[in-house]
Amino acid sequence: MTTSREIHLAKRPEGLPELGDFRLVERDLPALGDGEVLIRQIYMSVDPAMRPRLSTDYKLDEALFGGAIGSIEASNNEKFAVGDVVHNQLGFRDFAVSNGEGLRKVKPEADIPLSAYMSVMGGTGLTAYQGMIDVAKVKEGEQVFVSAAAGAVGSIAAQIAKIKGCYVVGSAGSDDKVAWLKDDLGLDAAFNYKAGPVNRQLRALTPKGLDAYFDNVGGDHLDAALSVMNVRGRVAACGMISGYNEFGAKTTVHNLANIIYGRISILGFVVFDFMHFMPQFQAEMAQWIRDGKVKHRETILHGIAEAPHAMVGLMRGENTGKMLVEL
Amino acid sequence: MTTSREIHLAKRPEGLPELGDFRLVERDLPALGDGEVLIRQIYMSVDPAMRPRLSTDYKLDEALFGGAIGSIEASNNEKFAVGDVVHNQLGFRDFAVSNGEGLRKVKPEADIPLSAYMSVMGGTGLTAYQGMIDVAKVKEGEQVFVSAAAGAVGSIAAQIAKIKGCYVVGSAGSDDKVAWLKDDLGLDAAFNYKAGPVNRQLRALTPKGLDAYFDNVGGDHLDAALSVMNVRGRVAACGMISGYNEFGAKTTVHNLANIIYGRISILGFVVFDFMHFMPQFQAEMAQWIRDGKVKHRETILHGIAEAPHAMVGLMRGENTGKMLVEL
Repeated sequence: MTTSREIHLAKRPEGLPELGDFRLVERDLPALGDGEVLIRQIYMSVDPAMRPRLSTDYKLDEALFGGAIGSIEASNNEKFAVGDVVHNQLGFRDFAVSNGEGLRKVKPEADIPLSAYMSVMGGTGLTAYQGMIDVAKVKEGEQVFVSAAAGAVGSIAAQIAKIKGCYVVGSAGSDDKVAWLKDDLGLDAAFNYKAGPVNRQLRALTPKGLDAYFDNVGGDHLDAALSVMNVRGRVAACGMISGYNEFGAKTTVHNLANIIYGRISILGFVVFDFMHFMPQFQAEMAQWIRDGKVKHRETILHGIAEAPHAMVGLMRGENTGKMLVEL
Repeated sequence: MTTSREIHLAKRPEGLPELGDFRLVERDLPALGDGEVLIRQIYMSVDPAMRPRLSTDYKLDEALFGGAIGSIEASNNEKFAVGDVVHNQLGFRDFAVSNGEGLRKVKPEADIPLSAYMSVMGGTGLTAYQGMIDVAKVKEGEQVFVSAAAGAVGSIAAQIAKIKGCYVVGSAGSDDKVAWLKDDLGLDAAFNYKAGPVNRQLRALTPKGLDAYFDNVGGDHLDAALSVMNVRGRVAACGMISGYNEFGAKTTVHNLANIIYGRISILGFVVFDFMHFMPQFQAEMAQWIRDGKVKHRETILHGIAEAPHAMVGLMRGENTGKMLVEL
């Protein structure tokens, strides 16, 4: 019998999540049924999009869930062999039982670490890629802004815009992150959104306006982008973390009337619509990583007991790049 | 020598415009130069989009301008003969001198009144048509909401959605207007936005959610639409009158994060991009009017001295359909 540890939602957070909102629970797993596999999780993801779910979708006193990578420990399913590495949505636990649905085999390139398949080589990277290329449709020479540009998705999105030949401005929440964006990732400009009003800082760094905005923040960042957007500008709406601590993910925006004369489009998108594109994306991204064109950072905590810290820290901006827990 | 009367901006309104913000001025026009024409204006338009310009673009102590239709009284321009009827942007005056730029000849159908070319058969109708068909891309059987549906653009947009086979809900600012929408224009449902919270009223009337929203209002109407929008819904952003009395046309919206998982697009558009389509549009619209499929109302005031009343009344919702001044 396998004993697993998992993170339960003990109470729904009000505002920023706190450690006391979560509970570590030990649980004996049942014997595997027909068609089932036992997964020993290796990495699990902690994402901003999980915060609204803490207020709504996740159930109280049950294990949370989310993206993870693990290896098959035991299998009653002919599609999966012991030792296979699979991406799954059963994070927040050491071990998971699955009937195989929603599992995606991961075959890492020899020169790329497995953790990258939870970030730049996984859904995180694909989100950035599709958002910048298929949604924002950036073209060479365009002016591009990425908010939360030191975050998991933002840092990849900003570098993809650079690869496509754009002028790229990023925002981040500390001077260290701003230095990383400019010195290591090669952004043309970056600013610390805590150091002054976003609209004033962004305007100073976008003398040619903006043709595209990859939005991870909403609120004051979206307002600032709309106030400098060029005619036919595009907003790829990936996330709006500024509202995620409010019930209903409310984020307040005042400048929407600018989109009318600007013929601006604001386009919501989710990576799930693009998963069929993963193999092609991974081949292209692997080459960019090898060529040094895309760099990435992960903030990795260790052990399932740290998962609540990862969530609390993420919402406080303590990560650079992807926030992961190694299990 | 021709003496004209024109409306000047005496001071910039704060909040709702008042009669004292405007001034009627009498002025002797200079003799026509080479290539110039003298236009005697017949109708002038008063539009919501003029309100933000009162705070910004229009100059103090000069004549306002805007859409108008007039006849050529004298011509030094071989392209225009005396008696030609021309659409122009020199409203808010009895007579106007033009070098011919921006004039568009209007040849009304025998069975359609000239005033219709300032509303349903002009830019107003084309705005509704393009917004509903090319921007919102409504399809048969879809669920559609039009705000300010008793207004000039909204009333046409809502009827076009009905022609296209959609379920159509409209909002308006009085019970009389709501009755007109349901009883005369044939909308499936309508509500008085002053009678209760917009989100609650809209939700009650959209059991199948919304596939498209033709936005003339912004603010609480846009928030309400976003809260019931189906996956891949489209918002055609035509106007946001809720913010037009604020400097910068600020309108406050909280539900934008809904667009992400909903893959919703919010698309700003202006009719100027579609003017080449006017002849084709007018042919189609004329037939709809003859067939009784599109009805329209105009609220017509008389005499240039009434133009400030038209602007003040428009912003107070005193019109049904297009607000015009007959000169």
